[in-house]
Amino acid sequence: MGSVDIPKLQKAAVKVGSGDEARAPVKEVEVPQPGPGQVLVKINWTGLCGSDKSLLHDEWSSFGVAMQPATKGIAGHEGAGTIVAVGEGMEHKWKVGDRAGIKWVWSTCGECEFCTNGTDELHCPKQINAGFTAAGTFQQYAVSDGRYTTRIPDGVADEEAGPIMCGGVTAYTACKRSNVRPGQWLVIGGAGGGLGHLAVQYAKAMGMRVIAIDGGDAKKELCKKLGAEEFIDFTQIKDTAAEVTRITTYGAHAVIVTAATRAAYESAPTLLRPGGTVVAVGLPKDSTVLAGAPPMMLCLKRLSIVGSVVGTLKDVEEALDFTARGLVHPILSKGTLEDVDKYIEQMIAGKLAGRAVLKVS
Amino acid sequence: MGSVDIPKLQKAAVKVGSGDEARAPVKEVEVPQPGPGQVLVKINWTGLCGSDKSLLHDEWSSFGVAMQPATKGIAGHEGAGTIVAVGEGMEHKWKVGDRAGIKWVWSTCGECEFCTNGTDELHCPKQINAGFTAAGTFQQYAVSDGRYTTRIPDGVADEEAGPIMCGGVTAYTACKRSNVRPGQWLVIGGAGGGLGHLAVQYAKAMGMRVIAIDGGDAKKELCKKLGAEEFIDFTQIKDTAAEVTRITTYGAHAVIVTAATRAAYESAPTLLRPGGTVVAVGLPKDSTVLAGAPPMMLCLKRLSIVGSVVGTLKDVEEALDFTARGLVHPILSKGTLEDVDKYIEQMIAGKLAGRAVLKVS
Amino acid sequence: MGSVDIPKLQKAAVKVGSGDEARAPVKEVEVPQPGPGQVLVKINWTGLCGSDKSLLHDEWSSFGVAMQPATKGIAGHEGAGTIVAVGEGMEHKWKVGDRAGIKWVWSTCGECEFCTNGTDELHCPKQINAGFTAAGTFQQYAVSDGRYTTRIPDGVADEEAGPIMCGGVTAYTACKRSNVRPGQWLVIGGAGGGLGHLAVQYAKAMGMRVIAIDGGDAKKELCKKLGAEEFIDFTQIKDTAAEVTRITTYGAHAVIVTAATRAAYESAPTLLRPGGTVVAVGLPKDSTVLAGAPPMMLCLKRLSIVGSVVGTLKDVEEALDFTARGLVHPILSKGTLEDVDKYIEQMIAGKLAGRAVLKVS
Amino acid sequence: MGSVDIPKLQKAAVKVGSGDEARAPVKEVEVPQPGPGQVLVKINWTGLCGSDKSLLHDEWSSFGVAMQPATKGIAGHEGAGTIVAVGEGMEHKWKVGDRAGIKWVWSTCGECEFCTNGTDELHCPKQINAGFTAAGTFQQYAVSDGRYTTRIPDGVADEEAGPIMCGGVTAYTACKRSNVRPGQWLVIGGAGGGLGHLAVQYAKAMGMRVIAIDGGDAKKELCKKLGAEEFIDFTQIKDTAAEVTRITTYGAHAVIVTAATRAAYESAPTLLRPGGTVVAVGLPKDSTVLAGAPPMMLCLKRLSIVGSVVGTLKDVEEALDFTARGLVHPILSKGTLEDVDKYIEQMIAGKLAGRAVLKVS
Repeated sequence: MGSVDIPKLQKAAVKVGSGDEARAPVKEVEVPQPGPGQVLVKINWTGLCGSDKSLLHDEWSSFGVAMQPATKGIAGHEGAGTIVAVGEGMEHKWKVGDRAGIKWVWSTCGECEFCTNGTDELHCPKQINAGFTAAGTFQQYAVSDGRYTTRIPDGVADEEAGPIMCGGVTAYTACKRSNVRPGQWLVIGGAGGGLGHLAVQYAKAMGMRVIAIDGGDAKKELCKKLGAEEFIDFTQIKDTAAEVTRITTYGAHAVIVTAATRAAYESAPTLLRPGGTVVAVGLPKDSTVLAGAPPMMLCLKRLSIVGSVVGTLKDVEEALDFTARGLVHPILSKGTLEDVDKYIEQMIAGKLAGRAVLKVS
Repeated sequence: MGSVDIPKLQKAAVKVGSGDEARAPVKEVEVPQPGPGQVLVKINWTGLCGSDKSLLHDEWSSFGVAMQPATKGIAGHEGAGTIVAVGEGMEHKWKVGDRAGIKWVWSTCGECEFCTNGTDELHCPKQINAGFTAAGTFQQYAVSDGRYTTRIPDGVADEEAGPIMCGGVTAYTACKRSNVRPGQWLVIGGAGGGLGHLAVQYAKAMGMRVIAIDGGDAKKELCKKLGAEEFIDFTQIKDTAAEVTRITTYGAHAVIVTAATRAAYESAPTLLRPGGTVVAVGLPKDSTVLAGAPPMMLCLKRLSIVGSVVGTLKDVEEALDFTARGLVHPILSKGTLEDVDKYIEQMIAGKLAGRAVLKVS
Repeated sequence: MGSVDIPKLQKAAVKVGSGDEARAPVKEVEVPQPGPGQVLVKINWTGLCGSDKSLLHDEWSSFGVAMQPATKGIAGHEGAGTIVAVGEGMEHKWKVGDRAGIKWVWSTCGECEFCTNGTDELHCPKQINAGFTAAGTFQQYAVSDGRYTTRIPDGVADEEAGPIMCGGVTAYTACKRSNVRPGQWLVIGGAGGGLGHLAVQYAKAMGMRVIAIDGGDAKKELCKKLGAEEFIDFTQIKDTAAEVTRITTYGAHAVIVTAATRAAYESAPTLLRPGGTVVAVGLPKDSTVLAGAPPMMLCLKRLSIVGSVVGTLKDVEEALDFTARGLVHPILSKGTLEDVDKYIEQMIAGKLAGRAVLKVS
Repeated sequence: MGSVDIPKLQKAAVKVGSGDEARAPVKEVEVPQPGPGQVLVKINWTGLCGSDKSLLHDEWSSFGVAMQPATKGIAGHEGAGTIVAVGEGMEHKWKVGDRAGIKWVWSTCGECEFCTNGTDELHCPKQINAGFTAAGTFQQYAVSDGRYTTRIPDGVADEEAGPIMCGGVTAYTACKRSNVRPGQWLVIGGAGGGLGHLAVQYAKAMGMRVIAIDGGDAKKELCKKLGAEEFIDFTQIKDTAAEVTRITTYGAHAVIVTAATRAAYESAPTLLRPGGTVVAVGLPKDSTVLAGAPPMMLCLKRLSIVGSVVGTLKDVEEALDFTARGLVHPILSKGTLEDVDKYIEQMIAGKLAGRAVLKVS
């Protein structure tokens, strides 16, 4: 096993308490050891995702989704750094010093129906998830599955890599799932937000024409700068569907819903031309909110409503490649591992600008 | 203009009254004349569709959908017979004596965005619909657009052609929209019903493995005979999702919802494996019923929910071809033009077996 | 019928002689009259395509392809101008003064297998072609099928519209046929040529990464300016396949062959990664030249070799839209109708820069 | 490691000599031991493929394709039997007594571009092939990669499993690559042969309409029995293209070429309708034979020519499932391991009926 000097103890942000009262103060914990097939990554920067907030605050417990004991209370799934130790059987692939990233899907079995049909490894029933069923990236040294660890290409900074491997790939696969071809219209709701501003850039780089929806002049300026061709300010324009029709004649070819609200899901299909697609990304807490449409509309307009979530190992590599080529950059709010609770407060208050990243090591 | 002896007057079933009180007694009306680009079809048999009932009884008026004056109160969109007169400019295509069919989409403009991208003529904003914006097939002589009239192939009887051009093509395109490949699992809800029993046959002929859902031994026997590999009797088995999982291990690849009920739409996504598809076909009166799923399920399982309705000119030809080859036959309840109201009563009572067809001429 | 002042006689470039000796001097001929369903277009500019040369010089007679009597010796299929007369039945669609374009596919029947399955109207056996089976655009006033005439959008100049409706759409559909997704590699052979320089721009606008192949620094500069990420100078680099592999690691995802040479077709499949696609566009005179590959290579690498030619009515609208948005511009050599033979000489000598366009009216 | 009684020595058919003089007599050799991640399969039956003949007789040496030392001269890649020993790390997946199959692709790396995009593992540059870069199935006990070994389902006999895992999956993926939809026409050349008779059955089970081409009444009877709708006897009908057009009006939607001959590849594209597809499967020794078409035909008819070879791990499972459901059965000539050379002689003489399988243990 190759290695560098690795301490016995490290800093980690560890969950304390439960529900809205939960916090993640920094504590001293043991540095884990990589087993066979695993690598140890020294985390340089980690992103702080909305899902980390939801998991730390037990928001999804009504869906039976909660951080498992194996995490030791350590959330985080947007980590980037360097390999510091290589477990048995991974020497052909990784060496100490390689740049590496840890993402939401921490490993898959590689053998089931979904792993072997290729495009569907995300549904592997034996998958392990960082910060959910395995200890995550809110620590200085994190173990990762060598087969599933992502190589970070030149041209992508560590602080950008984390958000691209999560929000970035989510935005990228949502654009792919939209089936919008170059020259066709894509509406992005919440276009100035954490996911939205990435979707605008990916869509632009994929040749789509983007209609950004968000509120206020600052958001307008941002979306236009990132490549949106049209901006609809929902604080000014009440009939969004009419405005989309005015711009596109027949309605948009697709709409990506990033907001986790009933209103966003209700209006989405009304923005579409016949044959159009709603791509659902936002995950409301309220389980009575449906991504859907009345059959009379869905059938007569032959619409599609599709769900998307993160992406495969290959999707992540592709998403990073757009950043390496300078086409997509996340907007970052930078802090340190000590700032987990501070940023979560900002998220709850709707005051977080872009994606939060924390300097770890 | 070629022609045969055509009377001045004819029989037609004409709408009288409104709402649930509406009836369609047979009256004597004028025989229409085909204009340029049109043909006159002597209707031999016409199907009586659930949509005819909905239109005659004003069920969709809350959606702004009601029979237009141009229909002269004559519904019907599943007509088959022979050409008796050919309008100017259609001599290259039709001659007197040719077998011909009239369907829901009576004509499209041939020039708009949707007509010229080919697969989407169904969304032509200038389309005319038989029995809705043009006089339908509940009459002995019906005018039809020569470009859009369907040629009925050898091997398809007139009484079968009507239901195939409507319920048949609806079932066929729903199967296509499901994206289920040969050897994969398709669930068909209401499999013994008017649409369902056709979908079972198309799916079987397309190499899919069919799980039929319906109630009672008669339905079971029918579905098995038509090619269903498995039958789930909802009167016996309460947990349909568990039963589908037992049969398919991971869930079905797609489910077609033919029932226009909230319960059918709610359960549909729970029957699917990751990546699976709900195909919506049934059109509930209640506009609060959604074809949809909670985003948490839709996204994490990356499901698709798609709407389907009838089919293009080409789809209809393909659907008829399956019947010509002996692979798909509608189950028929046969009557005459005088029986419109009687069959509608049976529909309302849920007692109609298969598709109703009326001998017209 | 709406109309403006239309003369009885006009100028046209009319074929004289045959084979390599054929010429197309300007003569005075009668102005044609639009029949029902037709329009009369006053041609402002017309492109001069390589196919015009081939037809005027009888190059394809060995394939049984030669200008038909109905052309009256008038070639040309890249015409743009304004409507000056509207035939019966086209008043709903066209009015005098509308901008309009005439292209290779002059009309299709709208009724056959290929017209009604939408994507395949190009294979309509009854199609009429401008400058081949109908009089073309090398005249001041040309009749056009009202259903199939193309509306020229704002933002596209007449002199650009002609080449976009032929070379442009050919390049655009070749890019679509390549199935290269945004971020993947497309090789374009003859990238600095008449078709190639358009393909570079479309591919770039569609998010593809372009490797341009051509010879010399002028071509390199051009290709780079138009958006090629890499340039391979075949006068400098002998092993193109090795260079493509160096750039792409596994080979390109697709290659478009614009050159009508044996060498171009032989090397194309060697540039591909497994699963890659050769898109054939160039049409060699020599019928022993095959677009193909040894089965041992084709099968083991599971390659695809596909043919592409111009595009549908809808494709042409899409291709024009890229120009209207300022993303694709043809390089033009401008002359007048009197210059047909001069430009053909330049084509034969390989000295024509970009696409030739002729001022007609 | 689980195990049963395993001898030290075993029988194997081992290559002796080279070129056309090569033979594969049965010798006594050592039984191999499974390493970590591997399993040991007691081969019950093995198929004898045309590729085994080509490898044993060094037919592909001009392509640089020859049996590697690691094979120890043991060819064969269609083996079926039971697990007799499970290597370290494979206990979660395999246990002694499980039914298991070994196929052409013996293992892939699971980590490269092609392995992780799922559908393309067949292009893994590190793949190992049975009987080519690893010892094959012409032995009583063969080591296999535990991750890539195929589970043989109930309803598939060992003697059928081998041919299905090779010729069967090749036929199945060729049908899939054809993109022929249910109800459309597929031509299968050499339909009565080793690959062809499997393709007929898969195509039939996938809802395609099959035109079988072969010679003689016995082949006709066979093809009709297996599900071909039409049969063209090339010994009787000289103009195959005209006959295909007579049957299909516009030509076939696709043709699968199983014969490794120049004539077969030259005629294939002439059988197609516009938009049709040639699927290349047969691998000629002569490297000047191209799967291709003149660009004038390929482009104007917008044809596709695609290569196909065996299939992925998932494809193999799907192919076996058709057999388990009783829809596809190989025709077998049964012998023993001692018969390798005898069957190869029959292959060369064109006298082998169906697929040869050898009883091994």
